[in-house]
Amino acid sequence: MSAEPQSLTVAIIGLGLIGGSLARDLAQRGAKVLGYDRETTIAQRGERDGILTALSSPSDAGAADVVVIAVPIEEALSLLPQLAPSLKDVRLLTDVCSTKASIARAAEKLGLARVFVGSHPMAGDHRSGWDASRRGLFANARTYVCATKASDERAIALAERLWKLVGADPQRIDATAHDREVAWTSHLPHVASAALASALAGASIARDKLGPGGRDATRLAGSDPELWTGIALDNATELLPALEAFEQTVRAMHDALSREDSDALRRHFDAAHTWSRAGQ
Amino acid sequence: MSAEPQSLTVAIIGLGLIGGSLARDLAQRGAKVLGYDRETTIAQRGERDGILTALSSPSDAGAADVVVIAVPIEEALSLLPQLAPSLKDVRLLTDVCSTKASIARAAEKLGLARVFVGSHPMAGDHRSGWDASRRGLFANARTYVCATKASDERAIALAERLWKLVGADPQRIDATAHDREVAWTSHLPHVASAALASALAGASIARDKLGPGGRDATRLAGSDPELWTGIALDNATELLPALEAFEQTVRAMHDALSREDSDALRRHFDAAHTWSRAGQ
Repeated sequence: MSAEPQSLTVAIIGLGLIGGSLARDLAQRGAKVLGYDRETTIAQRGERDGILTALSSPSDAGAADVVVIAVPIEEALSLLPQLAPSLKDVRLLTDVCSTKASIARAAEKLGLARVFVGSHPMAGDHRSGWDASRRGLFANARTYVCATKASDERAIALAERLWKLVGADPQRIDATAHDREVAWTSHLPHVASAALASALAGASIARDKLGPGGRDATRLAGSDPELWTGIALDNATELLPALEAFEQTVRAMHDALSREDSDALRRHFDAAHTWSRAGQ
Repeated sequence: MSAEPQSLTVAIIGLGLIGGSLARDLAQRGAKVLGYDRETTIAQRGERDGILTALSSPSDAGAADVVVIAVPIEEALSLLPQLAPSLKDVRLLTDVCSTKASIARAAEKLGLARVFVGSHPMAGDHRSGWDASRRGLFANARTYVCATKASDERAIALAERLWKLVGADPQRIDATAHDREVAWTSHLPHVASAALASALAGASIARDKLGPGGRDATRLAGSDPELWTGIALDNATELLPALEAFEQTVRAMHDALSREDSDALRRHFDAAHTWSRAGQ
């Protein structure tokens, strides 16, 4: 049966941190991996390392059982219409973008809803690119699996199996619910961390002046600016209310401090502390 | 000579994360440690573990060569007048508070300027208390040493020796310059992290929903609320402009997103990314 890991052929378009790590893990688990990257030397390196077979065009991906689009969201949205004709017969088309509603809508519009199931592995860090990719990145990583209303049950099952194969923990969720959740759990922390770093940069405070806590607080600021501009814009509907709430909290703490209102200030530090303890 | 580590007697008032860790390291390096904590069982535990001799009152600290005040800043400011009469003859009076100007002013007012030299070890984390204290906490930690205008050169040298003894890296700095710097490098990241956690708490987003990056960004939110309310208020003069700059940056990113102004948004992510790279 072609669904066995040993015989599964997976084409990965985009060999960055996520795509590259997925290629490494899948190859190691016995899947046949086809790889494409806009920067052709990347796929060639992957081939030389025995991880994948380099594709010369993303449209060649249609020959695989599974196609994984692993490029930033704006790129994925502009690539999908070009690829659509070649993807009608794959068993699963998925992606690894941080937002899930817009790409599902695009797949539906292109007549790919049956084979499309979105994915979002909560793995990776502020690094990016093939050189940052590595085996084991998805171990125990919560991975959201977002079916469309028309997704074939077998495509959904295959998406779950794909992620389990690399050690991840797939969890089904509605695309809109997903986008609302990650607006708070991931996109807001990214913007907050970038705003903190941007403010520090504006004040000419070098990063090496920070202690370990300050370095933690600004770690996400090292993320790829292009990728995160795209994610924030794609998820603006959900991210704006989160950002508004954060801005209000910063302003409230600022106001409390300028009034020397220790009770009001302490309430915020208390809420933060209680929240932190509950998640230990 | 009594300045040799082996014969140095150091009294530590407040046996939390910083005071407790200092006690452990100094004892291990052969200094005689006297310890006092408001919670009497703590000093008794330290004594039972062979780390220190428990003091029954903070005023007994005056018998030591060096007195280290290791309690939160408001507590230190209210304790100092009570202790002043017993501290006139110590060779060094120091503290470990995160702000340095207010306590130096207090020491000057109490006639302790000659023996007083403030300290601020950039060590520790969001944990607190004796149970979190440990050997090696100060290894390679930048430790600010803030003399008053009237500090005795021998007191300053002794402060530097004390920190070198526990592996820290003492650096002299003016108290006001110190407070300005840490407003940005430490206090602002604490408030930003707490504001983020407080906003997430307000939206009922549990901490375990966050990925590794979000957990990094909110780690400082787990810090002691009482301690940080005090630090923020004590350093309000320097912290307010930093907080204002941060608030403006958050608002600018929010505005850019609501206008779908990708260039403006990217500029902030770019500034954050460039700043992060420079500090690697």
